[in-house]
Amino acid sequence: MKIGVKILPKNEVLDTQGRAVEGTLRAHNRSVEQCRVGKYVQLEIPETDESKALARAKEITEFVLYNPLIETFELEVVRR
Amino acid sequence: MKIGVKILPKNEVLDTQGRAVEGTLRAHNRSVEQCRVGKYVQLEIPETDESKALARAKEITEFVLYNPLIETFELEVVRR
Repeated sequence: MKIGVKILPKNEVLDTQGRAVEGTLRAHNRSVEQCRVGKYVQLEIPETDESKALARAKEITEFVLYNPLIETFELEVVRR
Repeated sequence: MKIGVKILPKNEVLDTQGRAVEGTLRAHNRSVEQCRVGKYVQLEIPETDESKALARAKEITEFVLYNPLIETFELEVVRR
């Protein structure tokens, strides 16, 4: 089962990449209100049960993918 | 309206970060079948119409966020 992990910098954290994108868009008259840049990880987990796959993805994310001090994450089941 | 952009390296492209995560998980008895690491960008777009917001996000992504030679992307409306 494919699980997507969306990782974003916390709101309190200065997101330098997001600021850079905001600046570039402003300079090209394509301003947005906010832009945050993080990581997207797709895990193919050998598990057919959705809740078990999500539990394993959560464990892996906390173990090795995200930094709890400065980031938050969200999981999703990727169908397709 | 908040739009999420999920960017992943194409399957044909060597994904060094993904391989590194796979190796680490294997070494800790938490093997997964595959891991791909990409970028996640959240854009806050000043637009209330969903299809207009998605169209602007697509334009921005193609303009500045992703590299069509080595990456693919997918858009999503973030509700919340």
